[in-house]
Amino acid sequence: MSYNAVETIVAKRDGGHLEDAQISWLINAYTNGTIADEQMAAMAMAVLFRGLDDAELNAWTNAMINSGERLNFDGLARFAVDKHSTGGVGDKITLILAPLVAACGAAVPQLSGRGLGHTGGTLDKMEAIPGWQAYLDDAGMRHQLETVGAVICAAGADLCPADKKLYALRDVTGTVESIPLICSSIMSKKIAEGAHGLVLDVKVGSGAFMKTPERAHELATRLVGLGKGAGVATVALLTDMSTPLGLTAGNALEVAEAVEVLAGGGPADIVELTLALAREMVALAGLDVDPADALADGRAMDVWHALVRAQGGDPEAPLPASRHSDDIVAAASGFVTRLDAYDVGVAAWRLGAGRARKEDAVQAGAGVVLKVKPGDKVVKGDVVMTLHTDTPERFADARRALEDALEIGPTAPPPTPLVIDRVV
Amino acid sequence: MSYNAVETIVAKRDGGHLEDAQISWLINAYTNGTIADEQMAAMAMAVLFRGLDDAELNAWTNAMINSGERLNFDGLARFAVDKHSTGGVGDKITLILAPLVAACGAAVPQLSGRGLGHTGGTLDKMEAIPGWQAYLDDAGMRHQLETVGAVICAAGADLCPADKKLYALRDVTGTVESIPLICSSIMSKKIAEGAHGLVLDVKVGSGAFMKTPERAHELATRLVGLGKGAGVATVALLTDMSTPLGLTAGNALEVAEAVEVLAGGGPADIVELTLALAREMVALAGLDVDPADALADGRAMDVWHALVRAQGGDPEAPLPASRHSDDIVAAASGFVTRLDAYDVGVAAWRLGAGRARKEDAVQAGAGVVLKVKPGDKVVKGDVVMTLHTDTPERFADARRALEDALEIGPTAPPPTPLVIDRVV
Repeated sequence: MSYNAVETIVAKRDGGHLEDAQISWLINAYTNGTIADEQMAAMAMAVLFRGLDDAELNAWTNAMINSGERLNFDGLARFAVDKHSTGGVGDKITLILAPLVAACGAAVPQLSGRGLGHTGGTLDKMEAIPGWQAYLDDAGMRHQLETVGAVICAAGADLCPADKKLYALRDVTGTVESIPLICSSIMSKKIAEGAHGLVLDVKVGSGAFMKTPERAHELATRLVGLGKGAGVATVALLTDMSTPLGLTAGNALEVAEAVEVLAGGGPADIVELTLALAREMVALAGLDVDPADALADGRAMDVWHALVRAQGGDPEAPLPASRHSDDIVAAASGFVTRLDAYDVGVAAWRLGAGRARKEDAVQAGAGVVLKVKPGDKVVKGDVVMTLHTDTPERFADARRALEDALEIGPTAPPPTPLVIDRVV
Repeated sequence: MSYNAVETIVAKRDGGHLEDAQISWLINAYTNGTIADEQMAAMAMAVLFRGLDDAELNAWTNAMINSGERLNFDGLARFAVDKHSTGGVGDKITLILAPLVAACGAAVPQLSGRGLGHTGGTLDKMEAIPGWQAYLDDAGMRHQLETVGAVICAAGADLCPADKKLYALRDVTGTVESIPLICSSIMSKKIAEGAHGLVLDVKVGSGAFMKTPERAHELATRLVGLGKGAGVATVALLTDMSTPLGLTAGNALEVAEAVEVLAGGGPADIVELTLALAREMVALAGLDVDPADALADGRAMDVWHALVRAQGGDPEAPLPASRHSDDIVAAASGFVTRLDAYDVGVAAWRLGAGRARKEDAVQAGAGVVLKVKPGDKVVKGDVVMTLHTDTPERFADARRALEDALEIGPTAPPPTPLVIDRVV
């Protein structure tokens, strides 16, 4: 069935409801080029203002899934369960979580992306490991799930081509921040990946796309609805992203911190969030085990070593380090009352850890190491952060981004929960 | 000064105010291709939802004017005054008005456009006259204004190239119906044309872009404000477009009707609206004459003949006629209570009088001739309209468009004013 592009845009613009067949036609026509980029850009902006109701969102997501191939892990001996984070600063959780949940007995097919803007990307972090390769074909992925239990890799080009095209368009047209478009982008890929269960880590706060709990809750609710509607057991946790996770933001720096946690140490917030997500994934897989045990007894670390080696990496090789560093000191004495996730993310990005455009390269060693977190006591002149880069001319830019990042007050702030809500 | 495209789109999307320099940069960057079509499409949709305040609209319009050349009629002996209609069905007023106002002593540089969709275009109508040419260079236009007093021609390619590009984009992206974008499109061309005075005929009703008096009044107010702000004496009339103007919709059919009016006859509504607009134009030009006299004594017809001849046409040659016609008869007896302008416009368009795409050709003879108007008494079986086309396979389509066009009731409807409001 064929529709008219302008009439379809105008219908959404004026608050009308689009039929399933009309949405399917729209996504197909955009993917094959019948609908031009400028038409889809206008449609995306209309969706940003008008939204998509549940039926429209289901149809949109299904059309994106149907634009490409769909993986299927039904033949695996293990339950396949995946995690998706909406993106934050210092979020190295996947590096620990994938081997940990595999160590608990599930299969973890973790298709991941690269960082853009102030948020890091799992593939950029993993590529800091000498020799590690992000690209596996379907057979290689399946083999690794059977032998190692976990894989972290790039999505193939055949998975949701409509999403790839639309995501690139939204990125340059100011249409990223639409809850239904974010939902359909995330869930089309996750459903097409063929996992049986999915745990969503929906970030909220300055370093997240969703700045308020209300928006994050709306996003989580719609994501869970889409997953369940597609037959994927789905749970979402709303977690705090007002301050960075752990003490590092930057690729190799975060790998080192993840390995610390796998070795039984590391920052408390990383351990807490990893275990919270792991317990959800293990529960979806129907496994009666406590992930804390698999972390404590080294089984998670064993899977990590196997995963890195299976993808060509050397888990024992020294990680790359930046050639230059620069310390930032406390301007006053007192308690850290705020340490802003967004500002730290921007600083790490400017130091070379992230990219402004998809085609940019990242510096493996660049980033920010935090010496303090909210609630910590500091004395004026103490080092509170260290900046790392191979290109020291970037220090000034990073310092500017951090100008208002750290607040010091006379009393410690009340503790805030890391896991804010759970949506099922 | 340079800005970021995505940040500019997002600022408007989120309801922010754009600075003059930012708008100037945006329009320049779009005209020279630095900003892509898909980015401007998203921006246009954001403007449709968020609007432009007066300062933004001024800056937007000025940037469009500055994208090309600007004509200047300061050296003319006569005051240059122009009319613009927002587009309707059966609107052949320009054909009578331009020679009439020239006959009164003003210069009328009438740069006109072609029809798109259900509304007709003045150039399409004039081109029904054998030999008549729409294209004049600046020197030819000035010469004709000095010798004949009026010119009806196409705008040159160097006039507001930003508007040409943006208009074509809006046409395919569902972003036509934005009052500030309509305003800046109309007024950038009219101001760049260099007229000293401007009378706007803002149509309201089913056959117009503005369906309600409120929207039409808002459009008129912003158009007048823009004109005055640019130093052009500007007046707007809100006029009824719920029923077609006169008894014809179609190119040659409308030329014949315009010539009837120039000869002292023709439908009363055409005469009334032409004189109302002419009086406004003559007043702006500071001329103490009554256009009714220039119409009655044949001076307007003399200018018409001179205008057509000066542009290569033969005003005495027979006009093209369609090869096929088809009568529509009254389904009941009574009074015509409604005759829908939009439906008649669509029927004329489908018969071949209009075009679906810019590159389509039009049929000179195609269109609709009305035998009745609202208030007229009809007897069941009377012919109420005649359809004309060279392609009789189109009759069925036109009849479908007219299915609900005519309403017949037991009593005559109350008369409605043709000129609804005046905005200065």
